[in-house]
Amino acid sequence: METPPPLRLTFIFFIIIFLFLCSRYSFKLPPAFSGESQATAWLHNSMSRLRARSGSVPEIQIHEPRNHMEDVPHHPLDPLTMQEIYRVRTILSTHPPFSPSFPAIHSLSLDEPRKDLVLSWKEGDPLPPRKALVIALLNGQSHVLSVDLDLGLVTSNKINHRSGYPMLTMNDISVALEVALSYKELNRSAVKRGLSPSDVTCVTPSAGWFGPSEEGRRVIKVQCFSNQGTPNFYMRPLEGLTMTVDIDKKVVVKFTDTGGEIPVPKATGTDYRFKNQKEPLKIKAINPISIEQPLGPSFTVEDGHVVKWANWEFHLKADQRAGMVISRAMLSDSETGVPRSVMYKGFSSELFVPYMDPDENWYFKSYMDAGEFGMGATAMSLVPLNDCPRNSYYMDGIFASWDGTPFVQPNMICVFERYAGDISWRHSEIPVNGFDIREARPKVTLVARMAASVGNYDYIFDWEFQTDGLIHVTVALSGMLMVKGTPHQTVDQMPSQEAASGPLVSENVIGVLHDHFITFHLDMDIDDTNNTFVKVDLVKERTLPGQSPRKSYLKAKRNIAKTEDDARIQLKLYEPSEFQVINPSRRSQVGKSSRVQDRPRRERS
Amino acid sequence: METPPPLRLTFIFFIIIFLFLCSRYSFKLPPAFSGESQATAWLHNSMSRLRARSGSVPEIQIHEPRNHMEDVPHHPLDPLTMQEIYRVRTILSTHPPFSPSFPAIHSLSLDEPRKDLVLSWKEGDPLPPRKALVIALLNGQSHVLSVDLDLGLVTSNKINHRSGYPMLTMNDISVALEVALSYKELNRSAVKRGLSPSDVTCVTPSAGWFGPSEEGRRVIKVQCFSNQGTPNFYMRPLEGLTMTVDIDKKVVVKFTDTGGEIPVPKATGTDYRFKNQKEPLKIKAINPISIEQPLGPSFTVEDGHVVKWANWEFHLKADQRAGMVISRAMLSDSETGVPRSVMYKGFSSELFVPYMDPDENWYFKSYMDAGEFGMGATAMSLVPLNDCPRNSYYMDGIFASWDGTPFVQPNMICVFERYAGDISWRHSEIPVNGFDIREARPKVTLVARMAASVGNYDYIFDWEFQTDGLIHVTVALSGMLMVKGTPHQTVDQMPSQEAASGPLVSENVIGVLHDHFITFHLDMDIDDTNNTFVKVDLVKERTLPGQSPRKSYLKAKRNIAKTEDDARIQLKLYEPSEFQVINPSRRSQVGKSSRVQDRPRRERS
Repeated sequence: METPPPLRLTFIFFIIIFLFLCSRYSFKLPPAFSGESQATAWLHNSMSRLRARSGSVPEIQIHEPRNHMEDVPHHPLDPLTMQEIYRVRTILSTHPPFSPSFPAIHSLSLDEPRKDLVLSWKEGDPLPPRKALVIALLNGQSHVLSVDLDLGLVTSNKINHRSGYPMLTMNDISVALEVALSYKELNRSAVKRGLSPSDVTCVTPSAGWFGPSEEGRRVIKVQCFSNQGTPNFYMRPLEGLTMTVDIDKKVVVKFTDTGGEIPVPKATGTDYRFKNQKEPLKIKAINPISIEQPLGPSFTVEDGHVVKWANWEFHLKADQRAGMVISRAMLSDSETGVPRSVMYKGFSSELFVPYMDPDENWYFKSYMDAGEFGMGATAMSLVPLNDCPRNSYYMDGIFASWDGTPFVQPNMICVFERYAGDISWRHSEIPVNGFDIREARPKVTLVARMAASVGNYDYIFDWEFQTDGLIHVTVALSGMLMVKGTPHQTVDQMPSQEAASGPLVSENVIGVLHDHFITFHLDMDIDDTNNTFVKVDLVKERTLPGQSPRKSYLKAKRNIAKTEDDARIQLKLYEPSEFQVINPSRRSQVGKSSRVQDRPRRERS
Repeated sequence: METPPPLRLTFIFFIIIFLFLCSRYSFKLPPAFSGESQATAWLHNSMSRLRARSGSVPEIQIHEPRNHMEDVPHHPLDPLTMQEIYRVRTILSTHPPFSPSFPAIHSLSLDEPRKDLVLSWKEGDPLPPRKALVIALLNGQSHVLSVDLDLGLVTSNKINHRSGYPMLTMNDISVALEVALSYKELNRSAVKRGLSPSDVTCVTPSAGWFGPSEEGRRVIKVQCFSNQGTPNFYMRPLEGLTMTVDIDKKVVVKFTDTGGEIPVPKATGTDYRFKNQKEPLKIKAINPISIEQPLGPSFTVEDGHVVKWANWEFHLKADQRAGMVISRAMLSDSETGVPRSVMYKGFSSELFVPYMDPDENWYFKSYMDAGEFGMGATAMSLVPLNDCPRNSYYMDGIFASWDGTPFVQPNMICVFERYAGDISWRHSEIPVNGFDIREARPKVTLVARMAASVGNYDYIFDWEFQTDGLIHVTVALSGMLMVKGTPHQTVDQMPSQEAASGPLVSENVIGVLHDHFITFHLDMDIDDTNNTFVKVDLVKERTLPGQSPRKSYLKAKRNIAKTEDDARIQLKLYEPSEFQVINPSRRSQVGKSSRVQDRPRRERS
């Protein structure tokens, strides 16, 4: 059976930023919510109580830093271990073009075995050959290499001659910032704004090539902020100041400062750190609240990556670019107990954030958060109890740094059972027919979570698994805004609110309008790879004269996609459709194909 | 200041029923989820532990039946008490047209004081005059009455001469069912299908007037099912059999049975009651899980109706027709602590469920669940721990029955603090700039919940209050399907799947396509009643030649509604808009109006 091309769905989130931006009218978070105060105290409190209980009760898993040097792969899809990364580095360093000068490593990760090999692999079988896919940069050339760890050889080395460059390394960013910070013009601009050079923090908002002068070189834009009196330097831009840095030549190729007249916004009230909140908010404190599981959680994580819970089983791993990858998601049949394939692979493939301001210092802000910075590379440690509930299991990421050596991204993913007091299913009967029915089942799900901190924004990714077979992906937005300085302190001073590229959110600060577009790679395998995509449109059907008192009604029309192009869909609120991935070769007892579905929803935030 | 007309938003949920209907392939709920097994055991377990703790820890509020005879109103919006309902009945019975023959009471509830009186009322003030609004039916005429409880008088009695009839009473439904069940033809049809009359359960799917023969009389359709071997009679229709009953004349005015050849679907596997699940599902059991609040919940309910939590305060009451009504929702300013008005009143005004089948026995199925049956009248007791989490507060509904006497709808609303292990806000910094930031705040919200069991369907209404000022309304659908009998046992026997009005969901059962439309009445009062509705469209703006390397960008265009008609909105996925209710007379420190917003979302289920 032919494997169909993965079905790619794009979910678009229109983040209308005004909501985050009611300036002084915004309702700040009450101290009661802070981890430092309640939650931590509460953890100790409850841990001591748990300890006091019967030995059958497991300890809460507080994740201690692990030593990963002993890690070995157990599953064909397990990411490269530390030792494997070191080995790849050694193999590369003996690869002629890379000795004596070792290249910059922009990507080094498992080259996953062919799908058919993964699908035929059973626990206990030897692993398919372990291979690495490497993207390395040397003398301005990007090499795409295949490394066979068993043979100890580079089996392929293709040089990319097309335009574009690989993902940025942390070193690229550091270099760009060093070059920028040591640039004399920057100091002058800082002093002109009443800042000392040490008050200045810079970021690299956007790589990419804008106009002929930037073509053919690895350039990145650098912009700066005042960190005076706040960790939230994002709110204190040196507006109008932009540097274009050539990362390879380590020089500033362009410097503009058109914002000399625009004051740096005040630091007052911008420090969000809980420990620095001086006056308590006028709000009733919330008592400690937590999840209680006297017998501990119900899920297991085998060999570090295979998660088993209720009727679900899937492979979970951290990825430097995609952040979190779910593979081989299987649901056991509720009657036979046989695991049935649902999804071969799912991850967020890109996160595109274009800002809506044509201004010279803003037009280029169109982030590719995954492709430029990496969702895994920017996923910092999760904070126990505040980022993830009690009894969470924490997973590290093992990634490769720019020099080819491995590093650990600790506590980057958490897995936990989610219980919100919600109902999974219920039914009551009104007494009229004499049935006394009060059936209700609480809802418990399993969540795999990570949070990527791509500069000012934090993206919280949840993959939630329901016992009814639903996989529910949520992306929540948090963190700080990327704002624009303005001479205006109040709306009344502005010639026109509409002239600005966004609302005035506080004195001298404009929140520039922007979108967050998130794309997903979803390779569904319903019962196996022989899948078909079906679009079911609900269309208006007119009744025949005399057929019915009804004039019209909705009818379901099935359209089977013959090409991937047929499967391109556009959600329409007023022309509802239902989208199915079915397996035509597997039928139910009444003869229907097994299926997975997606449908428009508008639900809980 | 003029009070603007309430803003009505309609949220449309396209429930594509296929998802609930994977026939034998559906994934049933694991026993581990059942209240009878785990949750209850777990409750005792945890209660004993709580009891063992310090006296400062409040008991879990297990709601004991309350005696409401002593209830007195404390707030202008408090519903009529039992004693007030009795008093209204007495006043009505002395009202000339109603003596000696007392009318049928179709609605009897508080006639809310004028908004300005409610807004000017302060705690401790005497209540505005208590009045009742009554809809009564006598000799085929519907009276709309105003009763003043202080004066002890009917102050107004208007007879409705337009078409239509008031909401059904439980008595109307019982009468219709008695008339139908004692109809000889029905017994013949039952026997013809191999059923004894006692196996037959009937329901009243739809009131309303379809065609001239039904005009001018109170008729209702009655359809029947076999209850043999299952409480889920909905799955065993006597397809093709429909009776039209005149409720007032107590006669069957029309009987049709065109379905003699359609078998009654089997009972096998339709009993959903947990205690009757014979073979356990092949699924790993889920350990007990619950919410733990060692200091108890953080909210209070004053005088039975005023809920106070964190920075929120609102009036909550049960309503026989609307189910649950939120009034006077106020959010205290985080800096001054002064409560600020957000919403005067919010409730679900109607729930419309049209089925998509022109067939003689289906064309009329277009339920008005609120207007015909009543969301409060059908809201049965919530099941502690399974419908609502631990530490929930339960509220009763006090309603009027058809004879004007009060009755209690116990435990029909629950209020609880919701914690799902989610994050309300977080930010981390990647190390590159030397900031070590790991800030995260867990998310805790307050929920008011009810579940209406309107025949086969259960609707779970959640009004969720967030500390950032967001009110989030969710309606979840549960319960059973209203299905159609068919001679076909498998898809292959069907001439065409598309010919049917829905998919074959099990042997001889078709799940008929239908929608659930839910409308809301939302009377927003942002900081007071002087509000304006603003629609902000994000429109494509082209740059001028040479203005920017960008060719176009999105710009926010504000449109202020001058009439209620201007405020009619249609959500468009590809022409994003933002909807604001603002108070132009209240400005923030930077001069922006205070506001509430609604926006398209596609989020957590």
